[in-house]
Amino acid sequence: MDILKQTDVIPLYQQLKNIIKDAILSGKIKANEKIPSEAELSKTYQVSRITVRNAIGELVEEGFLIKKQGKGTFANKPKLEKNIIEFLSFTLTCEVNGVRPGSKLIKKEVIQPTQEDVEKLRLSAGNKVVFIQRVRYADHEPLILENNYFSDKYEFLMDEDLEKNSLYKILRNKYNVDLASCKKTIEISIASTEEMNLLGVSKGYPMLLVEDIVFDHEGFPVHRAEQFIVGDKIKLTIN
Amino acid sequence: MDILKQTDVIPLYQQLKNIIKDAILSGKIKANEKIPSEAELSKTYQVSRITVRNAIGELVEEGFLIKKQGKGTFANKPKLEKNIIEFLSFTLTCEVNGVRPGSKLIKKEVIQPTQEDVEKLRLSAGNKVVFIQRVRYADHEPLILENNYFSDKYEFLMDEDLEKNSLYKILRNKYNVDLASCKKTIEISIASTEEMNLLGVSKGYPMLLVEDIVFDHEGFPVHRAEQFIVGDKIKLTIN
Repeated sequence: MDILKQTDVIPLYQQLKNIIKDAILSGKIKANEKIPSEAELSKTYQVSRITVRNAIGELVEEGFLIKKQGKGTFANKPKLEKNIIEFLSFTLTCEVNGVRPGSKLIKKEVIQPTQEDVEKLRLSAGNKVVFIQRVRYADHEPLILENNYFSDKYEFLMDEDLEKNSLYKILRNKYNVDLASCKKTIEISIASTEEMNLLGVSKGYPMLLVEDIVFDHEGFPVHRAEQFIVGDKIKLTIN
Repeated sequence: MDILKQTDVIPLYQQLKNIIKDAILSGKIKANEKIPSEAELSKTYQVSRITVRNAIGELVEEGFLIKKQGKGTFANKPKLEKNIIEFLSFTLTCEVNGVRPGSKLIKKEVIQPTQEDVEKLRLSAGNKVVFIQRVRYADHEPLILENNYFSDKYEFLMDEDLEKNSLYKILRNKYNVDLASCKKTIEISIASTEEMNLLGVSKGYPMLLVEDIVFDHEGFPVHRAEQFIVGDKIKLTIN
């Protein structure tokens, strides 16, 4: 057992917080495992209940612990890790993380382009846009709302089953469309009411918004995508 | 003037929203410029006040517009763009974005490592940690709270002026420390109360948390850093 140092410059609650956090990160405390009660921690580490409460409070805020009414405090399920440099499909990302992927097609339609579409997809006059909207699930939980915009050169996608099949796999294997590079922005965003309903989150819920423009080998844009990611469920990684 | 299409499958408020959004993105409406009133927009586009209100409401939610009590609705200041692949210093990032950088040193101390430090910095027994905490400003607004952790091999940093000088420049130019590669994670986080106070944001405010481990040419970790970024002020880019 780690001993808290009363004389340390680091406040006691912070020391206790670090001990619990390290135990979670190192796997000593497993995901969904119940941690000892406030009374037990207070006895074990010889600190006041207030100190324990402060340590636990911050760990709950930071997403390491989760309180369940009447049941106790539990180590939280770790966030799904998604590498955002490789063109890794959502399906593969889920496999790497050991969760079951799922997809639901919300919209697939040919629409008028916005000015943003015209510029980012370099559309010509008269070009329309193929809009594909999907919700991606991990273990049946909605995780990402994905809006895809293609020029109508890719209208053939209207005939594809995009719930069962990977969009990138279809493009690559069936139509020989090569994806070569990508421009990305990542920011915090609040999705519109409609989008929040699709993800089952409440108003004002913070989300990660990842916007991509994906280019072929000639440097011409293939599509642009917006991914609204439920913020407490995914961690993006870059290696 | 764009005309709204009553017969279009896209709802009127959505069409109006796209027009205003495109005008902001294309620069037709400048940052901090006042947009026409609800009454004016309703007259110009021949739609109800409710339609205008819905369009503006979503643009406010998404950060494109900002309402100022008694003054009207204004195009919002665009987020600062930060390229997260290059080792671009905060100072340079600010220059690229045309804002004035600033730094405030909060803490510079030698502390006991946590288990996380030991693993991520590959510390040996007895190693301590040099902890450097700074708040980074753009045009006098706090933007990023930055926690840096170095092994005590870098204790020389204790003698450096880290408000006026770039940490990376000091490492490179003065001590010949080469930064070669980097592992990153990006997620949404809620900073602790102390951290929120330093950034002047209120409890529950969403932040982007960028965690880095930076390696030298031999693949040995030089430092790890946590950056808590005020979410509505920065957009991360990857090219």
